[in-house]
Formats: sequence, structure tokens, C-alpha cells
Amino acid sequence: MNRPSNQLFDAYFTQPAMRAIFSDHGRVQGMLDFEAALARAEASSGLIPQAAVPFIVNACHAEGYDFAALAQAIVTAGNSAIPLVKALGRQVAAQSTEAERYVHLGATSQDAMDSGLILQLRAAIALLEQDLAQLAAALAVQAERHADTPLAGRTWLQHATPVTLGMKLAGVLGAITRNRQRLAELKPRLLVLQFGGASGSLAALGEQAWPVSEALARELDLQLPEQPWHTQRDRLVEFASLLGLISGSLGKFGRDISLLMQTEAAEVFEPAAPGRGGSSTMPHKRNPVSAAVLIGAATRAPGLVATMFSAMPQEHERSLGLWHAEWDTLPELCCLVSGALQQALLLVPGLEVDAARMRANLDLTQGLVLAEAVSIALAQRIGRDAAHHLLEQCCKQAVLEGVHLRQVLGSNAEVNAQLSAEEIDRLLDPALYLGQARRWVERAVAEHQNFSN
Amino acid sequence: MNRPSNQLFDAYFTQPAMRAIFSDHGRVQGMLDFEAALARAEASSGLIPQAAVPFIVNACHAEGYDFAALAQAIVTAGNSAIPLVKALGRQVAAQSTEAERYVHLGATSQDAMDSGLILQLRAAIALLEQDLAQLAAALAVQAERHADTPLAGRTWLQHATPVTLGMKLAGVLGAITRNRQRLAELKPRLLVLQFGGASGSLAALGEQAWPVSEALARELDLQLPEQPWHTQRDRLVEFASLLGLISGSLGKFGRDISLLMQTEAAEVFEPAAPGRGGSSTMPHKRNPVSAAVLIGAATRAPGLVATMFSAMPQEHERSLGLWHAEWDTLPELCCLVSGALQQALLLVPGLEVDAARMRANLDLTQGLVLAEAVSIALAQRIGRDAAHHLLEQCCKQAVLEGVHLRQVLGSNAEVNAQLSAEEIDRLLDPALYLGQARRWVERAVAEHQNFSN
Amino acid sequence: MNRPSNQLFDAYFTQPAMRAIFSDHGRVQGMLDFEAALARAEASSGLIPQAAVPFIVNACHAEGYDFAALAQAIVTAGNSAIPLVKALGRQVAAQSTEAERYVHLGATSQDAMDSGLILQLRAAIALLEQDLAQLAAALAVQAERHADTPLAGRTWLQHATPVTLGMKLAGVLGAITRNRQRLAELKPRLLVLQFGGASGSLAALGEQAWPVSEALARELDLQLPEQPWHTQRDRLVEFASLLGLISGSLGKFGRDISLLMQTEAAEVFEPAAPGRGGSSTMPHKRNPVSAAVLIGAATRAPGLVATMFSAMPQEHERSLGLWHAEWDTLPELCCLVSGALQQALLLVPGLEVDAARMRANLDLTQGLVLAEAVSIALAQRIGRDAAHHLLEQCCKQAVLEGVHLRQVLGSNAEVNAQLSAEEIDRLLDPALYLGQARRWVERAVAEHQNFSN
Amino acid sequence: MNRPSNQLFDAYFTQPAMRAIFSDHGRVQGMLDFEAALARAEASSGLIPQAAVPFIVNACHAEGYDFAALAQAIVTAGNSAIPLVKALGRQVAAQSTEAERYVHLGATSQDAMDSGLILQLRAAIALLEQDLAQLAAALAVQAERHADTPLAGRTWLQHATPVTLGMKLAGVLGAITRNRQRLAELKPRLLVLQFGGASGSLAALGEQAWPVSEALARELDLQLPEQPWHTQRDRLVEFASLLGLISGSLGKFGRDISLLMQTEAAEVFEPAAPGRGGSSTMPHKRNPVSAAVLIGAATRAPGLVATMFSAMPQEHERSLGLWHAEWDTLPELCCLVSGALQQALLLVPGLEVDAARMRANLDLTQGLVLAEAVSIALAQRIGRDAAHHLLEQCCKQAVLEGVHLRQVLGSNAEVNAQLSAEEIDRLLDPALYLGQARRWVERAVAEHQNFSN
Repeated sequence: MNRPSNQLFDAYFTQPAMRAIFSDHGRVQGMLDFEAALARAEASSGLIPQAAVPFIVNACHAEGYDFAALAQAIVTAGNSAIPLVKALGRQVAAQSTEAERYVHLGATSQDAMDSGLILQLRAAIALLEQDLAQLAAALAVQAERHADTPLAGRTWLQHATPVTLGMKLAGVLGAITRNRQRLAELKPRLLVLQFGGASGSLAALGEQAWPVSEALARELDLQLPEQPWHTQRDRLVEFASLLGLISGSLGKFGRDISLLMQTEAAEVFEPAAPGRGGSSTMPHKRNPVSAAVLIGAATRAPGLVATMFSAMPQEHERSLGLWHAEWDTLPELCCLVSGALQQALLLVPGLEVDAARMRANLDLTQGLVLAEAVSIALAQRIGRDAAHHLLEQCCKQAVLEGVHLRQVLGSNAEVNAQLSAEEIDRLLDPALYLGQARRWVERAVAEHQNFSN
Repeated sequence: MNRPSNQLFDAYFTQPAMRAIFSDHGRVQGMLDFEAALARAEASSGLIPQAAVPFIVNACHAEGYDFAALAQAIVTAGNSAIPLVKALGRQVAAQSTEAERYVHLGATSQDAMDSGLILQLRAAIALLEQDLAQLAAALAVQAERHADTPLAGRTWLQHATPVTLGMKLAGVLGAITRNRQRLAELKPRLLVLQFGGASGSLAALGEQAWPVSEALARELDLQLPEQPWHTQRDRLVEFASLLGLISGSLGKFGRDISLLMQTEAAEVFEPAAPGRGGSSTMPHKRNPVSAAVLIGAATRAPGLVATMFSAMPQEHERSLGLWHAEWDTLPELCCLVSGALQQALLLVPGLEVDAARMRANLDLTQGLVLAEAVSIALAQRIGRDAAHHLLEQCCKQAVLEGVHLRQVLGSNAEVNAQLSAEEIDRLLDPALYLGQARRWVERAVAEHQNFSN
Repeated sequence: MNRPSNQLFDAYFTQPAMRAIFSDHGRVQGMLDFEAALARAEASSGLIPQAAVPFIVNACHAEGYDFAALAQAIVTAGNSAIPLVKALGRQVAAQSTEAERYVHLGATSQDAMDSGLILQLRAAIALLEQDLAQLAAALAVQAERHADTPLAGRTWLQHATPVTLGMKLAGVLGAITRNRQRLAELKPRLLVLQFGGASGSLAALGEQAWPVSEALARELDLQLPEQPWHTQRDRLVEFASLLGLISGSLGKFGRDISLLMQTEAAEVFEPAAPGRGGSSTMPHKRNPVSAAVLIGAATRAPGLVATMFSAMPQEHERSLGLWHAEWDTLPELCCLVSGALQQALLLVPGLEVDAARMRANLDLTQGLVLAEAVSIALAQRIGRDAAHHLLEQCCKQAVLEGVHLRQVLGSNAEVNAQLSAEEIDRLLDPALYLGQARRWVERAVAEHQNFSN
Repeated sequence: MNRPSNQLFDAYFTQPAMRAIFSDHGRVQGMLDFEAALARAEASSGLIPQAAVPFIVNACHAEGYDFAALAQAIVTAGNSAIPLVKALGRQVAAQSTEAERYVHLGATSQDAMDSGLILQLRAAIALLEQDLAQLAAALAVQAERHADTPLAGRTWLQHATPVTLGMKLAGVLGAITRNRQRLAELKPRLLVLQFGGASGSLAALGEQAWPVSEALARELDLQLPEQPWHTQRDRLVEFASLLGLISGSLGKFGRDISLLMQTEAAEVFEPAAPGRGGSSTMPHKRNPVSAAVLIGAATRAPGLVATMFSAMPQEHERSLGLWHAEWDTLPELCCLVSGALQQALLLVPGLEVDAARMRANLDLTQGLVLAEAVSIALAQRIGRDAAHHLLEQCCKQAVLEGVHLRQVLGSNAEVNAQLSAEEIDRLLDPALYLGQARRWVERAVAEHQNFSN
């Protein structure tokens, strides 16, 4: 092949196993698997002679095809199945001109392309399921490990009342578990045969159409859909949306990690490795190179998902252009998500946590993040607005004077009239103000275990 | 209110009932419903006095609030809950300064906004479910009615082997049924409470946090999620994706209708009504005004869905900017889809069908669309490539000479050696070449009935 | 009008003046301006009697029309011009049945809608130009004011070599200036008449077509395009892209502000105002409420811009559905961008800067951010890789031992062999390592002034 | 390289020359060109010894690098420049350890990556300019050739008053010319050097920074921007938008061609070629395989453009994730647009036109498409509404009775009172109702020639 490679960022952005599924080889093999199964199914239904089957099946190995020549033939054919079926016919004919008569019988190009795609997607889903399960397990372990590790909650990028690292990770775990639920739910809709012949009626197969359909679905271990779906693409787009959801959930995780890794925060770090995250000009830096992939995938996925949605209004029985828009888009999405998962699987188990720095950062506002605790306590005695107003005053004073809130509260008569020094101390201890943080971890882990069993 | 209206296209593009759900009134009432339920839940858990509840509940009617003033207050507050809770507090205080202390206790702005949104979405889903059910029923009726109405199949916008109108409609019905399945599956994930307090830990409620959460969920008849989801937005984005799927499925339908309505095809028409689809300059025209809405929604939805995906990587415990990006986007999507459904519900039951014209158009290619039937028959006798080549020659000859394929076949010795004149006639009759068309209708209808029961 | 309002977030997300331009009133007036000018142009060309003009012109005031009724009529008409022209005709006929004959003569609905839109866009552009000019001026002032204010450069969210606040602002200024250049370049392409009649040929006007076109363009002070552009929408989409660019540039600014406002960084702040950025549960917080709008707009714009691109392949002489997709999308984009500009205009002049904190943060890495300075100096003596390796070691040691880089360097023999203590001190002073920072400010300001004059 | 290929659709969807520009080789060479020029510039400024230059320059040939190894190294480095510069250093060191000291001096990874990208984009633009010029020329020829070829205008996919094929092509030509104008305007903004060093200040180069910058820009024949633009990405996104505009304009053309090729219309055809557009199951078909590429590109471009917009809010001095999102997206856009241009260049000169069929189709509505001509004529005598109403009646009658409009008009007393039979005949002749069609062609061609000269 004389085609220049274009894969410089593949190892970083995608997973080799997923790229392999959607390689030229993977695409061609998917269509050939359809053709082989079709021959078997048609023979089992008596439509074609059993004797023809081995000749066809033996020619259904992608290794035997010249992808560069196929690529060139696609230019005039307008799709990949027409030239592949022709090439397949030639290979079969070389062994048996009789068998060649029965190649692709009654099927249309899109039957081969869509069913082949579904076979690829089945492999892709197996990979995703495995990665998601592994990621969920790793998150569960880390969420439990850090269930009591307090750090500053951050809203609008401002410090707020404390949370725990476990609770943050439990949130990610919850999203991953929901994505696994969704994947389980959509699989029966997605992993279905495409088989309709020229216009979708299977008319070319006459009385044999239904038995052949059933046998073909069995051969490929796919469900038989209620009807062909050549221009009803919701099954694929639903899957694309799930890929978008996974990359969005991972993007949120990557965003948080990158923020926590900021020089000013320095609370967690991506696992270290030789050369990892180094900079050519700043020898001391450890860049969030995994988070970059997570954020990158979450930035690119929405546009690709939107393309799949935009390609839905496909005309009549077979679309031109909109169908074509899917061919490289859905594989790209699968690859991007696999790449993000690959980095997340690296990141989560090896996450370096600086709990001491978290504690230190919690005091950056000199008690202000626990103003709520005091405000709530006061509200019950002097009313919500009054308490809010009083705390606002105290907080402003603390900020103005650059002192700790404890000091301001301790010297405020109105506060002292309601709260003792001990009460104030207790209210300002982050470890005593974690609320349901542990419950969130437990529930996320339980939900995960429940799904996994 | 001194704000200029901006609703010129609302009646055309959206459904009034859906617009009402997402009106200022609807948004404010959603948040107030949360506040009222919170008061009840906190009283039932003993956190606040029962006596305070009626004062709060009585103030929770959107009619009592000045939306223009709220809109203005949002500018400095940065969200809608802060000024609303303040206004609510003032209303309560006017009746009872004691009760005012217990307003919004322990909750955060996003608890009110998100839970309020979920209540709006519940109403939106009820509307969608009703419309989808009605549309599915109408499609089932029409699919059965036209189950034996043949028309040209069209692939790449070229005539292909015949299909039936019923089979085309069954394809739409199948997509709608799948969308109803998806909606049923996501509802438990979507219709959940949002309640986490300042940073999501509910720390402000102390020991009462969990009982209040449970009571609050009961009050609002929402599920309690495994943990708060302030920055895990997959639940909302999954729903947005479903809205995209519905609009995509309807867009495909609208595209097909508009193509079938073309002057050159003239096979189906949108229902007529006074002034409907008229043109100021072309008095004779009947424009596909419903199809335009379906296509328009399918064109706009992908960008809006993409925005929801893009807004997923929300920072830490509460995002700025990304969260804001959702506020007008998800409602707009709901409204667009409701508008497309409204037009589809007009279109499907009143669809005008010109079966005679369909028959006439089927012969536009002078038999060529049935070449496959002949090719398949011949392939079984003289091999696939030979048959394909022979038919290609005959078809070219028919095109060149401008005659019917029957005539060419009848005068071709090679063909006559294999097929009798009667066989050729039978092979060229569209009504005898509909394959599984009826089965697709039956399966789609059965699936629909099965889901609906 | 009985239609519920839906404007709760308008004051926050959009600018009132822009909303007014794209209100129902604005849309209707745009079309009426076209109709009035058409009457004048046709009278000046002798096509219609001068006597008819005042009757038509007098009826061309949006105030005289019932928008709710128009909205309802659009549902059957499929666009806004058909019912408006009918209503206009009725108003004219009430004064002169003779004049009524000459309303909208030879024009098509899209002529009125598109030309009306262009008039709205002209007003929108005037507003944008003014805001952009003001923003650029404010940025220039602030960039110069802070031209010597050093703060940590941040790459991948990690501290890097120092920059200045002026240089950061100069970057934003540069982007705004380029956006102003683009706006100036596209205006002649965008601000053009739409006038083609039924299918774009202006056939209905016979010999008068060209003179009327020229007069009409003159009346509306628009350029005459080379041909009508009913389905060539690149002019509008180019403008939408520019809106996307502006919101992207502002989004970058908002992102940076929000990061610098983080509790951990605390280097700049949005201007304070009563109630601004307050939180219902965290009385001490000052949320980046302006930055949220900037980020929100930058998150929403890409999807809306994509919709405009997706709507480009409009069929033949007039599209259905794709054209419709533009109607609410382009106005929404204008409004979002205007809202982001409004917030930026608030933010930039009132920006609070804590230069002392910037200085303090610069030392957070204990000299590591200036490792480059040392590395470069050493590279010239011992080679790039050796220097890089040596510094990497020293930096690691500094990190491990928790000491300042100066201390490690001072006690490293290899370093001391090359650099004196004074050299090390100089190399580690941020104020001496600002490179071309001042030049970037000067060039940005000069470019700005050059453009503005 | 052991990486599986993934290029099955490349020959169909993209242009080989463009793929070559954005191949691994192209990317690496772009960065190496920067490094070579940097060495030259730094030597010319006296910063590094002249003697080092040949060693560096000689190592700057992409052929000498192992792309698969680079791809693997990117995984830990997080970008492509770090490992490339390391490999370059090793190659240089093998010849001269002295020269190795001066590799990449003072530059940062993004300087090399962005400047390299700009060099690739310059080559891409040269290719685009050539293709666009050729396409415009071909369109001009065809527009003039078919300037008097009438066919039905179609609005909302309904027949309307006649247009000419030349006028339709002139519309496309106008869009292409405007896209060429835009490309010319943005080039000075896009083709600029990226050079800022670690944080953008070029501090590492000391006093030499500016002279080196100027020399480097000269070496690469790029403009020097006002300041570095590492996180101000508007230049790239503007270009991405233009690519979106081109693909949108071509998508509109492809859409129209595919509609005109419909079996029912059959007015124009893509050029024939052996095997081109054939179908495996429908031997007679000629599929619009070029149009499919045009529509496909226009469907995919909006999502990719949106990704570029979404990636604009890049943090501080160097972004993580958002920057990464550009790396494969912009090249993909270039390749898609080049592929669409390649197909358009095939399609336009070889377009097959069936003018007779156009004439025949013009009469499909039995005169209704010329109702406007009659309506306008009548309006001048009996008023607009009355004429509109009268024609509406006549048209309805013609439709109901299935007769030609001429017949209805001829037998209508009200019409006959105003128009003679000769007048009616003239009004119903399409060739006499083409309005300014020829002018649009002339203006488009003139504008094209004016731009090209």
C-alpha cells in the first residue's frame, strides 16, 4: 500500500484494540462474516446448494483482500460492499464458477455493510464493557479508600463546605454505573441483523426470505429486528449518544483531576512514570497528560455525536450522503471513548493523593468555608436572614482584617449570645461537617456491586 | 413587564402545552414546589415546626412573584433560586417572621433549580408519552391501511424494487416504539430528587439529613438517587439525546413526506386546510408546512443536543458556565420536539395518498425497477455475474431505445432460452414482488401493541 | 396576548437592546420596512402609481399588527411573510382598495423575510461594533495599566515561567481586534438586499425588474448582490461563525478569570456590587457571575453555529425545513453574544487585581518556574540535554526536600562550576524574566489604535 | 510499523494530496521545518554558532524518523514535539554533540507544533485555492453554456416559476467566489508564526528574542503576529469556519444534483464512467456517487467545526485537552473539504444535461407554474387579492378537472374580460418568463473573472 500513514496521535488518543476493530481489516472482515453466514443460511434453507458453501466461506478472510485496491474501487462504486462482493466473487469463481453464482444472493450492499458494522460494534461493546467494569471496580476501591479524606468542596471554583475525595469519586462511579446500565439496555436494540435486500422487502428471496433471515440471524448470533432499518438509524445514534455520555462523564473527571493538580491546589496527581508529562522547557512540571485525553475526548465527542444525529433524516429506502456521513464518524467515536477509558484506567488506580495538602487547603479561607455550619446553627435561633446577615458581616470582617473566622466570631457579642466557644470550635471543624459523604460512597459502591453481580 | 415578546414562531415550531411547562411561570413553580415540599419534609422529620409549614406552602404559588424583577435579580445573583428564595422569604416573613426562619433550610440553589427542573421534565415526559402513544397508534392504523399499497422503493433517490406505503410507515412506527421504550427505560434514572446542600454533603441538616431526603423525595414523588448529581449531568443529557432521537426519527419522516409530495412524485400530501401551505406568489401550491417543521426540528436538535454534551465536564461540586449553558437549551429541545410531534400528529391521520399515482410512477423506469426479479431468476440458472451482465445489457438497451424492459427481454434470445413470456410477465409485476412488506407491517404493529399494553 | 413569557434568564444572558432588535416587533418591522421601500421603489420606477405609496407606507408600522394573531397564522402559512402581507393588504385596503393592489408586488415571502432580517442584522452589527470598540478600549487601558504586573504563567494548569497580566489582556485585545477586522470584512457581503420574486428570476416585474432592484437597494441602503441568495446561505453562516468566534474569545477570557478567581489563586476578581455573586448558603463567597455568562455563551454558541452550517444545503430555489432552522437560531446567537459582551464590558473596566497575591503565588513552586532561565543559561555551557538533565535533578531534589530551588542550586557543584551565586539570584528573579511581555502589550494596543482610527 | 490501516474510505472522501499534507510525514516535516528555520534564525542573530546549523538542518528530514516510535512516545509526553525534539537531538548529537546544544533553543513544544501546522495549512490553502479556482472556472463555463436552458424552479420542493440551469449554477459560482474572497482575507491572519517560548514571553532568548523572531518569520516566509497565540485560537477556528462554508456550499450543490437526478426528475446526471454508481442489485441504476460525497462532507463538517469552536476557551498560557481536541479535527476538516472539491471538479465539467426532459417537466403542472405570470398581469387590472383569488380558483379547477390551466383560463369569463387568448398564451410560455436569469449568470461570471484577475 502506497498510502501515507496518519496515526501519530492514535496511541495517545485511542486504544489499539479498538482501532483494530475499526481498521480496514476489521471492516472488511465484518462484511465477509456476513457473506459467509449468508451462504450458510441460504444453504440451510435449501436456497443454494450446500456444496457452494465451503467455496464461499473459505474466501471470506480479510487477509486475502487488497485494501488499497478496494479503497480505489469504492470511489466509483460509492460504497465498500459492491467492490468487496465483486472481489469475493472473483475469489470464489477461481475455485468454483458454480459456487460463485450463490455469493451475496438476495442481499444488498447495505445489508453487508450494516451487519458487518454491527459485528464490529459487538466487539467494541465487549471491549467497552470490560473497560467500564474495570474502571468501576477501580473507582469503587479508591472511593472507599478515600471515603474519609476531607478536602474543600468547590462551587463556582470557590471553596465551599468540605467534601471527601471518596464522595467525589463516588460521583464518577455513579455515572459509570449508569452508563453500564444504559449499555445493557441498548444492546438488544443495537445488536440486530440488517437484512432486507434491494429495497428492504427481501423480495428477491421469495418464499425463502423469512427462513433465511432467521437462519442468518442465528448464524451471526444477532437478534432479528422487527423490520430492516436501512434508513431508520436510531439504533446507531442511541449508541453514539451513549459513547458521548461516557466521554462526558470521563471529561468531568479529567477536568476535576486537572484542577486538583493545579500548582495552587496540588491535592492529587496523575501516577508518575518515566518521561510522563514532562515538558521540554519546564523540567520540573508533571503535566496532566491523562486528563488531557479525557478532556480532549469530551470536547470532540459532542461534534461527532451531533453528526450522527444530523445524519438521521435519511431518504426513503436508502440514503445518499447522510449514510456516508456515518462511516468514519461512529468508528472515530468508539476509538476516542476507548482512548479516554484507557487513560482513566491508568489514572484511577495510580492516583496520588496528598491528604495533608487537602487539609491545609481547607483552611485557606480561614474558616470561611464553614461559615454555613455557623449560619445554620444561628438561623435556628435568630432567623435565617438575620443569621445570614450576621455571618456575612463576620465573614467580611475576617476577610478585611485577614484573620480567621473563629477569631471574629469569638469576639462578636451577637454570636456569643447564641453560641459558646466550644460550639464555635465544633462548628468550624471540617471533619465534623461531612454530612452524608460516607453514605454517598456506600450507596455508589453498593449500586456498582449490585450491577456487577 | 416591559420586555418585548419574542414568540412569533412559537405556535408553528412548538406546542403550547410544552411552552407553558417551560415558561417563566413553570420554572418558578417548579422551584416553589421544591421549597414547599422541603418545608413539609423538614417538618415531618421534626427539623422545623409544623406551624411554619402553612406559611411557607401558601407563599409557594408562582402567580405571586414578579418575573421581570426576578429576571433582573438573576443578573447579580447568577442563578434563579437565590432571588426567588429571597422573595419567598419576604412573602413568608410578611405573614410570620418565625416561619421565615425555616425557608429553604439546608438546601442550596441548585437543589431547588434542579429538582424544579425535574418536576418540569416529568410534566414534559407525560406530554411526550401521550403524543408518542397517539402518534404510534395513528401510524399503526395507517400502516395497516396501506399495507398493500405498492410504490417505488427509492435508494440513493433512484427508483428501486417496489415497496409498500405500509412498510414505509411501519419503519417510522418501529422507530417511535423504540423511542418509547427508551423513554420508559430512562425515566427511573431521570425523575430523581436533587438534594445535597452547599457542597452536596447535606451537612447542614446534621442527623436529619437522610430522613428529610427520604421525606422530600416522597413529597415530590421522585426517586432518591444514589447520591446528589449537581455536576454529574448524564441523566439530563441522556434525556436530551432521546429528544434528539425523536426529532431525528420525525425528521426522516418529514424528509420522506416532502420528497413524496414533490411535483414530480405527487404520491402523498399533507392534509389540506384553508390557507394551509399556500404561497403568496404561487396560488396553486400546497407546501409541506408540517414536513418543514419536522425537518427544521431535526436540523436544530443536533446542535442543541451537542451543547448538552459539551456542558458535561462540570467542575467539582458546582459548575459555572457549563451549568448555565443547560438552562435554556434543554427546554428549547423539549419545545422543538413537542412542536414536531404536534405536526406529525396532524400529518399522519390526515395523510392524503394517491395510490394510482404511485402505480403510475412505478412504471416510470419502464420495468427497470423489476430487473432484479429477472436477474435473480436468471442468476439461479446462468450464474450471478452472467445474469447481472445480461440484465445490465438489456436494461441499457431498454434505456437507449426508450422502450419497456419487457420488450427487450422478450426479444433477447439468451433470456428466452431461460424464461418464458409468462415468467417474464410475472417477474415484472410489482404487486407480485413485495416480499416481506406485509410482514414488516404486522411485526411493527404487533410490537407497538405489545408495548402499549 | 395570552402567551406565557419565557424570559427569566434574558436579562442575565442577553442584552436588552439586542433582544429588542430580534423581538416580534423587530422582526415584523424589518419586513414592513422592506414592503414600504418596495412600494417606494416600484413607484419611482413607474411600476405602481405614486398615489399608492403613502397608503402602503403608512401601514408599515409594526405597532399596528397583532403578533399573537400573526403567530397563529404562521402555523398554516409556513412562514411569517404570508400572513403579514395579508394583514398589511387589509390595512391598506381599509384606506384605499386601489393602493392595496400594489402591496408586495412581484416579491416573494422570502424576499421580505430575508431583507427584513438583513435590516435587523445591520442594527445588531451596529450594536456589536459599539460594544466591541468599547471592550477593546477598556482592554487596552487595562493591558497598559498592568503591563508590568507579573504573575505565574500557567501551562496545562501548571505554573510556568512568569508572564504579566498586561500580556494576558493583550492576548484578549488581539482577538477582539481581529474579530473587529473580520466584522468589517464581512459586512459588505452580508448587508445586501434579498429580492428575487417567486423563483429568484424577478420575472413578475418584467422590464422593470432591474430598475426596481436598484431603487429598492437604495431605499434600504443595502448593497445589491450579484444574484439573489435564497438558498445560498453562506452570507448568514459567515456572520454566525463570527459570532461564534467572538463568544469563543470571550469564553477564553471568562475561563481565565474564573481560574484566577479560584480561592487557591485569588489573583483577580470580578467587580463587586451589592448582592453580586452571593450564595444563599455560603455568605462569604463572591462568585464569578460574569465569567459564568462568558463561559455559558461559549458553550452554547458552537451548537448554534453548527446548526447554521447544517442548514446550508438548502434545496433548489427555496428550502423547507433548513431555512426554518435558521429563524430562531441566528437571533439566539446574536443575543447570546450581546449578553457575553455586556458582561465583559462590566468585567474589564472594574477588574480587581491583587498584584501582591500574584507575587506571592509566583513563589509557590519555590523557584521552580524559573528553572528554565537557569536551564537555558546552563545549556549554552554544557549542552541542552545535560543542562535539562541537571536541572531536572535539582528540581526533583528541591521538591523532595521541600526547599527552594535556589538552595539546591547553590549547593550543587556542577551548577556552581558554571554559575555564580549572583547569576543564580538574577536568573531566579521573576521581574527580570518577562521577556517580550511589554512588547506584546504595545503591539496589541498599537494594532487596536490603528484599527480604531 | 505494526499499526493496522484505517483508510478504506479515504480515496472516496478525501484528496490524496491533502491526506499527504496531513499525514504523519507531513506533520513531522512541518515541525522539523520549524526547527531547521529556528536554527538558521538563531545563528543569523548570533545566538548560536553558524557551525551548528548544518548539523541541525541535515537532521530535519521526516524520512529519518520512526513515526510508530514517535506515536508511542507521545503517550507519555502528551504532545508530538517533545519526543520529536528529543529524537532530533539524538540525530544531531550523533554527528556533533556541540550542535545538539542548540536544538530547539528557547522554543516550546507548541511553537513547533503550531508553526508546523501553519506550514501544513499553507500547503493546504494552496491546494484549496487551486481547486476553488478550477471549480469556479468550470462553473462559469457551465453557467454560460446553460444560461438559456429553462427548467422548473422549485420552492419547498414544489414546482414554481421557471428558472434556468445557468442561473442555478451561477448561484453556486457566486458562493464559491465569496469563499475565495474569504480565503484571501483570512490568509494574512492565519499564515503567521507561532513563537513564544515556555509561557509566551520568549524570555529564554533574552535580548535576542525579537531579532530571532523576525529572522524566523522570514525564514519560514510567515507573518509575525502581534503576539503569540498559543491559547487565542481564533485564527484556526476562522479557517475551520471557512472550510465549513465551502463544504456547505458544495453540499447545497450536491443536494440539488441528487434531486435533479431523481428517477422522477431525470434532468441532470453525474458523468458516466465504467462501474460508476452501479448497484449490486439494481443493474440499471446510476447512483449520484459524487453528490453523496458532497452531502456527506456537508453533514460531517458542522460537527467538526463546532469542535473547533468548543475548543476555544483554552486556559491561561497553554491548554490541556482543548488544544488536543484540535489536532485531528482541523486536518480531518481539510481532508473532507478537499474530497468534496475533488468530486465537484469531476461533476461540474462532465455534468450531463437533459434539456428536453427539463422542458417536459416544466409542463408537469399543466401550466400552473406560470399562474404567477397571469396573476401579476391580472393584479394590475383587478387588484392583487382579486387576481390572487381568481387564479387560485382557476388553478383549483385545473387541478380538479385534470386539465391544462390554459384551457381553464380560456373558458373563464372573468379572465377573458381582461386578457386575450394571445396574451394568455404568451403569459404561459416559460421561455418568455425567465426574468433576470441571464443577468444573474452574467453578474456571477463577471464577479468570478474580476476576482480571478
